[in-house]
Amino acid sequence: MASIQHHHPLDPLSSSEIQTAISLVREAHGGGVQFHTVTLQEPRKADMVRWLARRDAETRPARVADVVVVVAPGAKVGEGLVNLAELQITRWAWLEGIQPIITVEELQAVEHVVRTDSRVVEQCQMIGIGREEMHKVFCDPWTIGYDARFGSKVRLQQALMYFRPNLDDCQYQYPLDFCSLYDAGKRQVIHIDVPETRRPLRRTPAIGYHPAAVEAQGGYRKDLKPIEISQPEGVSFRLDGRELTWLNWNFHIGFNYREGIVLNNLTYNDKGTVRPLFYRLSMAEMVVPYGEPEHPHQRKHAFDLGEYGAGYMTNNLKLGCDCKGSIRYLDAVFSTSDGSVKRIENAVCIHEEDDGLLFKHTDFRDDSATVTRARRLVVQQIFTAANYEYVFQWIFYQDGTIKPEVKLTGILNTCSLGEGEDTKGWGTEVYPGVNAHNHQHLFCLRIDANIDGPQNTVFTVDAVAADAPVNSATNPYGNAFYARTTKLETTAQAMTDYHGESTRTWDICNTARLHPYSKRPVGYKLISRHVPSLLPKPGSLVWKRAAFARHAVHVTRYRDDQLWPAGRHVPQTSGDTPIGLTEWIGDGSEPIDDEDIVVWHTFGLNHFPAPEDFPIMPVESVSLLLRPRHFFASNPVLDCPPCHSLSPTQLSRPSLAEED
Amino acid sequence: MASIQHHHPLDPLSSSEIQTAISLVREAHGGGVQFHTVTLQEPRKADMVRWLARRDAETRPARVADVVVVVAPGAKVGEGLVNLAELQITRWAWLEGIQPIITVEELQAVEHVVRTDSRVVEQCQMIGIGREEMHKVFCDPWTIGYDARFGSKVRLQQALMYFRPNLDDCQYQYPLDFCSLYDAGKRQVIHIDVPETRRPLRRTPAIGYHPAAVEAQGGYRKDLKPIEISQPEGVSFRLDGRELTWLNWNFHIGFNYREGIVLNNLTYNDKGTVRPLFYRLSMAEMVVPYGEPEHPHQRKHAFDLGEYGAGYMTNNLKLGCDCKGSIRYLDAVFSTSDGSVKRIENAVCIHEEDDGLLFKHTDFRDDSATVTRARRLVVQQIFTAANYEYVFQWIFYQDGTIKPEVKLTGILNTCSLGEGEDTKGWGTEVYPGVNAHNHQHLFCLRIDANIDGPQNTVFTVDAVAADAPVNSATNPYGNAFYARTTKLETTAQAMTDYHGESTRTWDICNTARLHPYSKRPVGYKLISRHVPSLLPKPGSLVWKRAAFARHAVHVTRYRDDQLWPAGRHVPQTSGDTPIGLTEWIGDGSEPIDDEDIVVWHTFGLNHFPAPEDFPIMPVESVSLLLRPRHFFASNPVLDCPPCHSLSPTQLSRPSLAEED
Repeated sequence: MASIQHHHPLDPLSSSEIQTAISLVREAHGGGVQFHTVTLQEPRKADMVRWLARRDAETRPARVADVVVVVAPGAKVGEGLVNLAELQITRWAWLEGIQPIITVEELQAVEHVVRTDSRVVEQCQMIGIGREEMHKVFCDPWTIGYDARFGSKVRLQQALMYFRPNLDDCQYQYPLDFCSLYDAGKRQVIHIDVPETRRPLRRTPAIGYHPAAVEAQGGYRKDLKPIEISQPEGVSFRLDGRELTWLNWNFHIGFNYREGIVLNNLTYNDKGTVRPLFYRLSMAEMVVPYGEPEHPHQRKHAFDLGEYGAGYMTNNLKLGCDCKGSIRYLDAVFSTSDGSVKRIENAVCIHEEDDGLLFKHTDFRDDSATVTRARRLVVQQIFTAANYEYVFQWIFYQDGTIKPEVKLTGILNTCSLGEGEDTKGWGTEVYPGVNAHNHQHLFCLRIDANIDGPQNTVFTVDAVAADAPVNSATNPYGNAFYARTTKLETTAQAMTDYHGESTRTWDICNTARLHPYSKRPVGYKLISRHVPSLLPKPGSLVWKRAAFARHAVHVTRYRDDQLWPAGRHVPQTSGDTPIGLTEWIGDGSEPIDDEDIVVWHTFGLNHFPAPEDFPIMPVESVSLLLRPRHFFASNPVLDCPPCHSLSPTQLSRPSLAEED
Repeated sequence: MASIQHHHPLDPLSSSEIQTAISLVREAHGGGVQFHTVTLQEPRKADMVRWLARRDAETRPARVADVVVVVAPGAKVGEGLVNLAELQITRWAWLEGIQPIITVEELQAVEHVVRTDSRVVEQCQMIGIGREEMHKVFCDPWTIGYDARFGSKVRLQQALMYFRPNLDDCQYQYPLDFCSLYDAGKRQVIHIDVPETRRPLRRTPAIGYHPAAVEAQGGYRKDLKPIEISQPEGVSFRLDGRELTWLNWNFHIGFNYREGIVLNNLTYNDKGTVRPLFYRLSMAEMVVPYGEPEHPHQRKHAFDLGEYGAGYMTNNLKLGCDCKGSIRYLDAVFSTSDGSVKRIENAVCIHEEDDGLLFKHTDFRDDSATVTRARRLVVQQIFTAANYEYVFQWIFYQDGTIKPEVKLTGILNTCSLGEGEDTKGWGTEVYPGVNAHNHQHLFCLRIDANIDGPQNTVFTVDAVAADAPVNSATNPYGNAFYARTTKLETTAQAMTDYHGESTRTWDICNTARLHPYSKRPVGYKLISRHVPSLLPKPGSLVWKRAAFARHAVHVTRYRDDQLWPAGRHVPQTSGDTPIGLTEWIGDGSEPIDDEDIVVWHTFGLNHFPAPEDFPIMPVESVSLLLRPRHFFASNPVLDCPPCHSLSPTQLSRPSLAEED
């Protein structure tokens, strides 16, 4: 057990810890269990804060595994905690009627079953695919969302069906018009949803993106000259285990099956004082509602994190990520369904990037000037959710700004469109016979704020004109305007929406500490401009299940284990009873002023597909900023060496200037 | 004259052309004139289009200089056209009551006059600056905006006053409480605006950003390891004169005193077909209204382009720009007030940048994957408007997207704050005694659209839920949503605002050409998320003068010379009579559907200063996208070579894969 002692308490479970937990659960509950989650139960915040304050003196928080298993999928779920030092299951419960996250193994089991199901073969024949072609039939297994006909007690996936004439073709070009429902318990297709009007397979010429397809279209262009990026003296950051130090920044990089990257205990060294900023940052949930009303497309609204896991689906980045130059990688280790352990190498990449100008000023009188270049640090993962890839970037700037950025690429989810059929505005015919439905990508950023300490307060900030009319005594010229700040006092009041016209932002402040000059509370400003409204209507299935997306911002009091806003077990929830955020908020009366709070921010984009997105989509990007305002005494990056600097006195004394 | 024949018709006037124009005007109107503008009159569009279509066969449009001179500043303005081939003034007029752009020479003349004015000396003494310290008094000369007491017939600047204890101090830390008005005709201070309650100079400890100041605070940090970027085989773009070709892109890079960079005749080679996109793109105007109601701060609302010129104020970029790696520069040449010619070397920089991922997809079944890296091309200038620097970037992406981006840095405009005085919410005390007022930066992007030809149409596009309620026949699950497009039929209807919640965009389309698959008109989408409302109230001075900023989008019919939305001569306009955009739009009845149109888009940001912005501001950035939608048959960048590619068949034949 010695090695465990050297873990940072927030390090993901190691391979041996996972194996220990699995052994103990198997011992207690037999070999028949299927493992869905064997992950770190993060230490209770109180314990963790105590340890962080005095790492040498305080007891290291215990290593605990959070385990979720399934026995007879669909029927019975077991979940509990395993204390890894004491080698004891400290809590265990058997639950029914809930469905834990879908594992990669479950997803990968579907295609073979579907392809060999006789009713599927029959359906394929009806739309023009011969029995001898069934090896060319593929399916993307998706969470079913929630289908009232089947409820929550049968463990289901919906298999979106495709055809691939040749292995290297893009299957999304050949969607099939029916949808197979797969029961993970029976390992069988239990139902097929067939549209009223059939859409036979359209064998249009293939459009692909693999090399042979490109060669057939004239080949790759040869006029791109290499751009080389290197750091001959190495990188400017240091990794101590998973604790990263870069310039004034320090934070711990966790990783779990669900959220993927989790950043903890983010601090900024402000001229010698280590100031806490955020206790924990992660993408806590997301939902991708599709806008086609025809059955069964309403079921397409995947919660990719809660239903599949951004960790479980994450890519090995060695073969291609956003990075260029000097890269450091971190691996990820997970349990598999059958109780073994798998490693995803290079699950996280870390690198520095040049970032253009940090600041510049020229005095027009004498051309004295200071020019300082910027750089940024990127901590990144990429995961594949069936057709789409999502790039989660956590970008750190020298000046204390954090930019969470999501890049979207991969391939559109597509449906079949009959000859001469109209999409009716719910989608776009991106290629003959290929209907790409309207959809939203809505991400929920969980901000466990710790601005100079845990007691924080959130304000909305709107840019507004003064009330006083033009020509009035207090606004004689009509030009007066200000930032109207509104304190969010309760969880109900904190359910706030975005207003683009007033450039609404949210200030997360420590009201107990005022800036010495501005006399405003120290804070971080949430600046987010990609904040579409949730388009499924109030009362709709998506609206019920994805309560976090009803508003741009929710605020709750911090409580251990309140991590995931759509609930701990998301698949096949109906949203009819409070779960996750709705449960925690309750009647909305809880005060959140000057408390240990969590801010839930939903941002994203609306995607009305266009042919340019097909057959593979150039990256589209969405990001936001967490930016220090009234936090530092003044510009905190004046100590970054300029790439050009000539002060007025240096200019007026040419001999000195030349020495420079 | 031989060299002129080789000019592209849109090349800026050369040094010799400027000299020719100046000589001709001097000959005609005497040596006493002061030159404000000697710039290319861009060829009439009809002539230009004819020439572009058949460069060898058609007559090259004539080279014409647009000249503006002042005689007895404030009193009499002359303007006209000089045909440079025929060496003739072809049009000339003398005007009164208008004020042309303020030249750099006019700006630089002010400080000495102000500093030696006896009334200024007296005011300085009143707030604690001794006569012997007058060499430490500085001023930033600003456009006066419009001051009704003086109207438009006296040529005025307002001198914002500062103190610099030592030459290398940041003067913006020591604002003085009065404002001197300078008459450019008399070269005298003609008035001083003094506040009711005086604010004596506060000699607080200096906060600086020059090396000595940083050294005194502990010096520069030493932990930034170099990041080296190089292109050992050279760049991927080609400059033929000022015509740039990069991958599928081709455009001409113009530059003038006012807008700075002007991009013309932008086309994209779509698999062999050169398709027109935009006839002309530029930042046509901007305004920076300040929100402090106290007199005389309402006068602070500079139109930096129309009143000073982004060209005239542009930096030599050799000493520091955003670029790293292989850079190409273009110079700029201007007339000076006294009729000579000056060259700003390296006024424009051009470089390629790595841009992370272009697209990626992994098949979860077999880990077959394609990863392609992106790059972008940046055409850039930086100009200094007194305290601020503005970086104008025109960023081109491989897939046909254009991102105009503005980066803001430099130093806050500041005012003095008395001991214990409150900013009343109209500004922020960023340092003791330093009040930085609330302000907006609003930029007007002029888009002369040419989407597959000049006849274009604009639509607003809003993401909205279907009207039909949840559980209705057409929206049974309540998830239906679509992109509501609204055609803008007339110039009045085209005055449209931003809606963040519906993620409003504007489609610029050629309705005569439908996409072969989607059946939607080919188009470019204007995606802009930083679109604050104009905060000065309707009827206020700023609202009257900056009509372009009243709405996010205006659309007009194209007419030659309708280039600048706040008018051709902006200084000291009152806005009381229609000028620029308001004049062109008139009663708003002009049809704009399927016409040669210009789109005017105002975007920007609200700046409520914080101490982090002082004494020099880390870059803040604002950008938007012009993105092809339904324009290309499919993803136009499939031919970019991947950095990693392994198709399913390559994977299933390992011997082949290894060869890769």
